[in-house]
Amino acid sequence: MTDREVRLDLGRTDRVGFDEAVLCTGKSDAQLTEIMNRLVDAGRGMLMTRLDADVVDRMTPGHRERLDHDALSRTAFFNRVPGPAQAPTVGVVAAGSSDMPQVAEVVRTLSWFETATETVVDVGVAGLWRLLDQVERLRTFPVLVVAAGMDGALPSVLGGLVPGVLICLPTSTGYGAARGGETALHAALASCAPGLTVVNIDNGYGAACAAFRAVQAVRRASG
Amino acid sequence: MTDREVRLDLGRTDRVGFDEAVLCTGKSDAQLTEIMNRLVDAGRGMLMTRLDADVVDRMTPGHRERLDHDALSRTAFFNRVPGPAQAPTVGVVAAGSSDMPQVAEVVRTLSWFETATETVVDVGVAGLWRLLDQVERLRTFPVLVVAAGMDGALPSVLGGLVPGVLICLPTSTGYGAARGGETALHAALASCAPGLTVVNIDNGYGAACAAFRAVQAVRRASG
Amino acid sequence: MTDREVRLDLGRTDRVGFDEAVLCTGKSDAQLTEIMNRLVDAGRGMLMTRLDADVVDRMTPGHRERLDHDALSRTAFFNRVPGPAQAPTVGVVAAGSSDMPQVAEVVRTLSWFETATETVVDVGVAGLWRLLDQVERLRTFPVLVVAAGMDGALPSVLGGLVPGVLICLPTSTGYGAARGGETALHAALASCAPGLTVVNIDNGYGAACAAFRAVQAVRRASG
Amino acid sequence: MTDREVRLDLGRTDRVGFDEAVLCTGKSDAQLTEIMNRLVDAGRGMLMTRLDADVVDRMTPGHRERLDHDALSRTAFFNRVPGPAQAPTVGVVAAGSSDMPQVAEVVRTLSWFETATETVVDVGVAGLWRLLDQVERLRTFPVLVVAAGMDGALPSVLGGLVPGVLICLPTSTGYGAARGGETALHAALASCAPGLTVVNIDNGYGAACAAFRAVQAVRRASG
Amino acid sequence: MTDREVRLDLGRTDRVGFDEAVLCTGKSDAQLTEIMNRLVDAGRGMLMTRLDADVVDRMTPGHRERLDHDALSRTAFFNRVPGPAQAPTVGVVAAGSSDMPQVAEVVRTLSWFETATETVVDVGVAGLWRLLDQVERLRTFPVLVVAAGMDGALPSVLGGLVPGVLICLPTSTGYGAARGGETALHAALASCAPGLTVVNIDNGYGAACAAFRAVQAVRRASG
Amino acid sequence: MTDREVRLDLGRTDRVGFDEAVLCTGKSDAQLTEIMNRLVDAGRGMLMTRLDADVVDRMTPGHRERLDHDALSRTAFFNRVPGPAQAPTVGVVAAGSSDMPQVAEVVRTLSWFETATETVVDVGVAGLWRLLDQVERLRTFPVLVVAAGMDGALPSVLGGLVPGVLICLPTSTGYGAARGGETALHAALASCAPGLTVVNIDNGYGAACAAFRAVQAVRRASG
Amino acid sequence: MTDREVRLDLGRTDRVGFDEAVLCTGKSDAQLTEIMNRLVDAGRGMLMTRLDADVVDRMTPGHRERLDHDALSRTAFFNRVPGPAQAPTVGVVAAGSSDMPQVAEVVRTLSWFETATETVVDVGVAGLWRLLDQVERLRTFPVLVVAAGMDGALPSVLGGLVPGVLICLPTSTGYGAARGGETALHAALASCAPGLTVVNIDNGYGAACAAFRAVQAVRRASG
Amino acid sequence: MTDREVRLDLGRTDRVGFDEAVLCTGKSDAQLTEIMNRLVDAGRGMLMTRLDADVVDRMTPGHRERLDHDALSRTAFFNRVPGPAQAPTVGVVAAGSSDMPQVAEVVRTLSWFETATETVVDVGVAGLWRLLDQVERLRTFPVLVVAAGMDGALPSVLGGLVPGVLICLPTSTGYGAARGGETALHAALASCAPGLTVVNIDNGYGAACAAFRAVQAVRRASG
Repeated sequence: MTDREVRLDLGRTDRVGFDEAVLCTGKSDAQLTEIMNRLVDAGRGMLMTRLDADVVDRMTPGHRERLDHDALSRTAFFNRVPGPAQAPTVGVVAAGSSDMPQVAEVVRTLSWFETATETVVDVGVAGLWRLLDQVERLRTFPVLVVAAGMDGALPSVLGGLVPGVLICLPTSTGYGAARGGETALHAALASCAPGLTVVNIDNGYGAACAAFRAVQAVRRASG
Repeated sequence: MTDREVRLDLGRTDRVGFDEAVLCTGKSDAQLTEIMNRLVDAGRGMLMTRLDADVVDRMTPGHRERLDHDALSRTAFFNRVPGPAQAPTVGVVAAGSSDMPQVAEVVRTLSWFETATETVVDVGVAGLWRLLDQVERLRTFPVLVVAAGMDGALPSVLGGLVPGVLICLPTSTGYGAARGGETALHAALASCAPGLTVVNIDNGYGAACAAFRAVQAVRRASG
Repeated sequence: MTDREVRLDLGRTDRVGFDEAVLCTGKSDAQLTEIMNRLVDAGRGMLMTRLDADVVDRMTPGHRERLDHDALSRTAFFNRVPGPAQAPTVGVVAAGSSDMPQVAEVVRTLSWFETATETVVDVGVAGLWRLLDQVERLRTFPVLVVAAGMDGALPSVLGGLVPGVLICLPTSTGYGAARGGETALHAALASCAPGLTVVNIDNGYGAACAAFRAVQAVRRASG
Repeated sequence: MTDREVRLDLGRTDRVGFDEAVLCTGKSDAQLTEIMNRLVDAGRGMLMTRLDADVVDRMTPGHRERLDHDALSRTAFFNRVPGPAQAPTVGVVAAGSSDMPQVAEVVRTLSWFETATETVVDVGVAGLWRLLDQVERLRTFPVLVVAAGMDGALPSVLGGLVPGVLICLPTSTGYGAARGGETALHAALASCAPGLTVVNIDNGYGAACAAFRAVQAVRRASG
Repeated sequence: MTDREVRLDLGRTDRVGFDEAVLCTGKSDAQLTEIMNRLVDAGRGMLMTRLDADVVDRMTPGHRERLDHDALSRTAFFNRVPGPAQAPTVGVVAAGSSDMPQVAEVVRTLSWFETATETVVDVGVAGLWRLLDQVERLRTFPVLVVAAGMDGALPSVLGGLVPGVLICLPTSTGYGAARGGETALHAALASCAPGLTVVNIDNGYGAACAAFRAVQAVRRASG
Repeated sequence: MTDREVRLDLGRTDRVGFDEAVLCTGKSDAQLTEIMNRLVDAGRGMLMTRLDADVVDRMTPGHRERLDHDALSRTAFFNRVPGPAQAPTVGVVAAGSSDMPQVAEVVRTLSWFETATETVVDVGVAGLWRLLDQVERLRTFPVLVVAAGMDGALPSVLGGLVPGVLICLPTSTGYGAARGGETALHAALASCAPGLTVVNIDNGYGAACAAFRAVQAVRRASG
Repeated sequence: MTDREVRLDLGRTDRVGFDEAVLCTGKSDAQLTEIMNRLVDAGRGMLMTRLDADVVDRMTPGHRERLDHDALSRTAFFNRVPGPAQAPTVGVVAAGSSDMPQVAEVVRTLSWFETATETVVDVGVAGLWRLLDQVERLRTFPVLVVAAGMDGALPSVLGGLVPGVLICLPTSTGYGAARGGETALHAALASCAPGLTVVNIDNGYGAACAAFRAVQAVRRASG
Repeated sequence: MTDREVRLDLGRTDRVGFDEAVLCTGKSDAQLTEIMNRLVDAGRGMLMTRLDADVVDRMTPGHRERLDHDALSRTAFFNRVPGPAQAPTVGVVAAGSSDMPQVAEVVRTLSWFETATETVVDVGVAGLWRLLDQVERLRTFPVLVVAAGMDGALPSVLGGLVPGVLICLPTSTGYGAARGGETALHAALASCAPGLTVVNIDNGYGAACAAFRAVQAVRRASG
C-alpha cells in the first residue's frame, strides 16, 4: 500500500479566516513530500508545525530552499513569506525559560498570520515581583497567551490582574506530579480567576490560532 | 469557631472589567448571609452562582426580596438589576437539550454583564443538518460559547465552519466513557479544528466571563 | 530456559470463520522462527501483524522468500497468497493522513480474508465538506471501518449519516489531551450517534476481523 | 429562562434506518413533556430510555396512557406499538443475573425495532460448563450481544467459539477493581479473541442499535 | 460477630510528642462508645476528628457531657480540656472562605496541642492585593499551614514570599478539573516555589500534626 | 420483561472444593427470592454476601427463618448450619478497627467453610509495638489474611516477619489520597516484602476463598 | 558522594523461609559489585533478578564465572548452585507465548528455591480447547501460577475449574486498552471466579515467592 | 527566534532565606551558558540540579572549571564553594540502595546550604530489624528526610517512632503497581502515622529546601 493520499483543505481561510497548517509529527517523509509538491503546484504557501531538523535534512534541495525553518519552535514557513506584522499586538507570557519552545511556536504562528507579538518570559509566581513589574504593560494587551508548566499558577495570578482575552497554554515542563502538563492544564481549568480559557498541552499553534480568532474580532470591530 | 470571615474583592472590576461572583456551593448559610449583609451595607450588587432553590428558601425575607433567582441556571442577581443588553451579541450553542442548565448559566451571567446573547440548542452532530441549517447565522457572531457533553464532537465541527472566538464548555452530560465530562473536555482540547479554547466542565459562569473578555476587547476596538 | 514452546490454534477457522494471526510484537526471533517452521511443515499460511522491517531482515532467506511484507501496515502474508477480493466491499474511512498505517492494517487484513475494500482518507470534520462530498458513496457500504485519532469526532458525524455497520478504530495520533488514543476511544464510546461499535486503539487487525464477521453474516444471508 | 427548547431529529430513519430515541436522564420533566407533546402532535412514536418509574408517576394521565413502560429495562414505548419481531434473531448473552437490566434494555430496544431476540443468561466463565452447554445454539446467531461486568472474561471466551457479529456490552456490575465497568470495557477491547466490538458501559440501547445495523445489512443481503 | 475490639496506642506521646486521635468516619457507634468507655476508665482525654453532629446526638448523656464538639471543624475534645495556647504561633492561611472547615480542623487540633494559631482567610491569588497586604505579617510565622482548593495557586505564590516552614493543605473545594482536590494537591507538589510540603486532601488534622512537629523542634531549640 | 432467570452453579464444589456464594448487591429482591426458592427445593444451603439488613427485612418470613444474618459482615448462612471449625487455623489480621466489616466477612466465610480463624485487630504500623507484640503468634499461622486500608503499610511489614501464606485484603478505609482503597491495593502489589498476594478492595469473601484454597492444600498434604 | 552503601538482609531465611534476592534494575554497577563482593566474602549465594546481559558483560571475570545467567528470565544464580527440585510441583500456566519471559522468571526463582515446576504455555481462552485438554492435569497441582496479559481472561476461567492455590501474574503484554498490564491486573482482581490472588504486573519473582510460601505450608503439613 | 532570554531571581535569599537553583532538565545548552555567564558577571554562585554528565562535557572549559559536579546526585555547585556544614544535623533515611540518587540530591543541596546531614540507607521495612536498630539515633534528629519508593511503607513506620519534622520523598523506584512513584506518594499522603509531609516524586532538591526551612526555624529559635 502507499500512504501518499492527501486531501488538502484549501478553503479553510474562507470559512474561518486563516489557513490549515500541517502537523508534521506522525506523517511520513513521503506524505510531507506529496503535500509540498501539491502546494508548489498550486502556488500556495503553508505553515508546518512540529517539524524537526532531521526531517528537513532529508528533504530535496528544491523543497528545502522554499522553507524558512526555526529549530526552537519546530515550525517552518513553506513557499510563502509572511507580510509585516499588524496590530493589535498579542502578549505572549511565560512562567519560565523552559517554556521557550512553546512560546516560540506561538510567536512564529502569529508571524505567519501577520500579527504582532510581544514576549515576556521568566515571570513565574515564585518570584512574584518579576511579574508585578510587568503588570501595567500586560494590562495593555487586548489578547494574551500565557504559557506555564509545573503547577501552572501564573494564569490564575494574571487572570485577576489584567482585562484582556486570556489563553492559557499549559506546557509539559516538570516531572512527577506535574504529570506531563496535566497539572498545569487542570489548574488553569479549575482556576478561580475568572474567564481563563485553555488549549491543549504544548499546543502553541492552537494558542496562536485562538489568539488570532480574537484578533480578527478586534480588527473587524475597529475596521 | 465561626466561619463568617469574609474578604470581598470589590476592586476586581477596575482590574479586569467585571466583578467577582459568589460560588455558593461549599459555602454555609451563615457565610452567604454575611456576604449579603456586607453587600447591602456597601450598596453593591452581586451575581450568585450554583445557588439551589432550597438555600434560597432558607434565606431571610429581606435577602430573598433583593434576589432575582433562576432555578434552571441556579443563578441569582442580588441587590442590583442589570441594565439592558448591549452589542455585540454572543452566540450560545448547545449540542443537546440536556445541556440547558449550563447554557442558562452562560446566558444569565452575560445578562448580568449587560451583554446580548442568542441561543441555538439541539444541534448535535448526530443530526448534522440541524447544525448546517444554522451555519450562516453562526458565522455572524464575533464570539461563541459551545456547550457539549458526551463525545464533545460539536466544537470540532463548528471550529472548521465559523471564524469567531470559540469557547468550548464541556458538560457532564452522559455516562460511562463520557467520564463525567472529561471526554468532552479532552475532545475539545485535542480537536484538530484550529483555535478552540476550553473552560472547566459545567463552568457556564467561566465561559461567560471568557466571552465577556472578548466582548470587552471588541467594544474597546469599536469604541 | 527456552522460549520456543508454541501451540498454534489451527482449528480457529472452523469455529469462527477465519484463522489465527500472529502478533509479532513481544515475540522473540526464536519464537517467530519456530512458528514459521511449523507452518511450513503443516503447509499452512499465516497473517503476521506488527512485524517490523528489521525483524524481517533478520529472518532466514528461506522464510523471507515466503513472506509478502508491507512496511506501512507492518503486516506480512506468510506461505500463502490470498485469492481475489470478494464482495461485499468494506469501506475504510480515515480522518487524516496520519492514520494511514492503521488504515493499511485494515486493508491488508481484509485482503488476507479475500474481501474487497475501498479507502476514503482525509475526511476529518474540521473540513466538513470533504466528508459531505463522500456521503452518498459512504451510504452504500454495508460495513464501514472508521479510523480517527485526536478528538475522534468523525465517527459521531458519520454515525448520523450512514446506515451500515460502523466499526470505529481509534488511533494514537495526537498528543497531550489526545492521551495516546484514549480520547478518540472514549469519544466513540460516548457518542450520541446510535449504534457505533469500537475496537482497541490502533487495532487495525481487530477492526478488520470485526468487519469480516459482518461480511460473513451478509454472505451467508445472500447465500 | 425556560428549558423547553427542543429540536427533534425526525429524519434519522431515512438516513440510518432507525429513529432517534430519547435519553431521559438529564432531561427535566418540562423537557420530556414538551417532547411528548410534539410527538402526539406529529403522530409519531418514540422509544424512551433510562426512564425511571418516579418520572412516569409525575406524567399527566394523557401521556401515561400512551406509554408502555418496563421498570427493569427503564425503557418505554410512547405513542406507538411495535409490530411483530422479524428474523434474523439476535442472541443476547449475559454473564450473570446482575446484568439483567442491561440485557432487558437490549431486548426492549430490539423489540421496538421489530427484531427477534433470544436470551441466554448466567453463563459466566467461572462455571464454564454452563456456557459450553450453549455453544452450539450460540453459533447459530448471525449477531450476538454479550453483556458482562466485573472481569469481562465472557466475551473473550465466546469470541473464540462463535462466528457471528459480536457486540460486547460491558456492565457496571462489581466493585473495587471492576472500576464501575471500566475493567470489563478494557478487557473486551484488549481481548485476544478476534473481531470483538464494544459499546459504552451499560449502554444497552447502543448495543441494540449496533446489532440492528448488522441485522439491516443481513436483511438487505437476503432481500 | 462484634466489632468492639479496640487497641489504643496510649504510648504515642512518649514516642512522637503528641497523642493518637480518633478518626470517627468509618467507625460504628459501638466502636466509638467502647473507645470512650476505655478513656473514661483510664482517665485519659482524646481528640476526635470527622465527628458529625448526628453521631454526637446518638451518644449517651454521660459521654456527651464530657465532649466539647465543634460542628464546623467536625472535631471534639473528649474528657480533657486543653490548657492555654503557647508560642510559637502557627499561621493558618486559606485561599477562600469555602476552605473554612479545613482551616477550623487545623486550628482546633493545634488548640488541643496547646499551641497558638492566627488565621488569615480569603487571600486567594485572583485578588492578589488581599494577599500582598498580609505578606509582612505572614513572614513572621516560623510555621504556616496554607489551605487551598481548585487550582491551588496560593501555596506557590506564598512559597516565594515567606521563609517559614510551609505545609500545604489541599482542599476538595471546586468541581470538574479540580478533581476533588487532586489538582490542588498536584499543583502544590509540582510547584516551582522551593520547599513546600504537602499533606493529604482535606487532612486538617494531619497538617496540624505536621505543624506541631515543627513547633516542637522550635521549642526544643529555644528551650 | 422479568429478571427471574437464574442458573445456579451447583457443581462448583466438585470442581474447586467449595460452593458458589451469592453476591446480593445488584440483585433484585425478585432474583434473591427465586434463588432462595430454588435452594429450598434442592435442599441446598448457600452463603450470601453483601446482604444488607433492609433487604432481609423485606424477605418472606419463610426465608428469613432459614437465614443466619450478621449485620457487621453483611453475610448470611441460608438453609444450612455450618459444622464445627477445623484446623488449620487461619490468622486474620487488621490494621485498624475501621476494617472490622471486612475482617468479619473473612471470618464468617471461613466459618461457612468450617475452617478455624483467629483475629488480631488494631496492629497498624503507626503503633509498631502493638504489632511486634504479636509476631511470635502470627508466625505460627500457615495462612494469614491481612486487611489494611489507607497507606496499606501493614502487609509489607508483616511480609518480612512471617513465613505463612499471605493474602492482603485492601480496604476502602480512608479518604483523599487513599483513593477508595487503591493506594492500599497498589502498595501491597508494589511491596518489596516477598511473596505477598492480593485480592480486590473490600473483597473479604474472596480473601477467605483464597485462604481456603491454601487450607485445602495443607489438609490434603497432612491427610 | 558514593552510592556503595549496602545493608544486606541475611536473616530473612530465618524469618520467612527464603532469602532476599537482588532486584538489579535501578542499581548501579558499583552497587552490584559491592553486593557481589560482600556475598563472596560471606560465602553466601544470591538470586539476582532483572539482570540484563549487558550488565553481565560489564562485570569482572571473577564475578561472571560465579554467575549462572539466563537471558530469557533475566535471572542469575550467584555464588551458589541450587540443589535438586523437590515436591510438591508448582504448575506454571501462561496464556500466550509472549508471556514466556515472566514464566521463565517464575520457573528460575522456584529452581533457586529447589522446588519443582511444570510449565503449560499457549492455553489462552480464545482457543478454549487447548486449555480444556489440560484441565485434568492442571487439577492435580496444589499450587499454580497463571500468567496472562491483555484481557487477562485465563485466570477467571481456570479459577472455576481447579482447586489449587491460584496466583495470578498479570503481564504487560498487549497495547492500548491493555494499559501495560493494568487490564489483566484489574480483571484478575475483579474476577467472579473465587479465591484468585494476584501479584504485581510482570512480577515473576513475587509470584514464585508466593507459590513458595504455599509450598512451605504444604511441606510442613506433610511433614 | 532565540531562547536566551533569562530573568534570574537574585532576591530570593532575602525573601525566603536561600537562593534559587537552576533545574537543568528542559533547558538548552544556550540557556545554561547564558545563565552561567550572568552569574560570572555578577560574581554569584548557583546550585544546578538534574545536570547530566554529557551536558557538562559540552560546556566551555571556563565554565567547567568553575563547576563542582556530582554524577550520582546530578548536582553541581557553580562559581561558589559552600562553607562548612552547620548544626542542626538533618537525618536522611532511605528504604533501599536504589534510592541513592535521590538521597544524594538531598545531601548535596543541604551541603550547598551549609547544613549538616547524616545518612541512613537500606532500612526498608521488609527487614524491620535493620530499621529498629537505628531508631534511637533517628529519634535525635530535629528534621528528617525519608526517601522511599515502591510501596512507600517506611515513612508510615517511622512516623510512629520519631518526634522530628518528617519530610517524605517518594521515589520512582519500582515498576507496575509502583506507578513511577505514585504509590509511594499516595501511601505517604494517606498514612495513618501523624504529621508526615510530602514532596514531589524524586524531588530531592525540594525535600532539602523543606528541611532547610525547618532548620532555619530551629536556628532562629536557638538564637
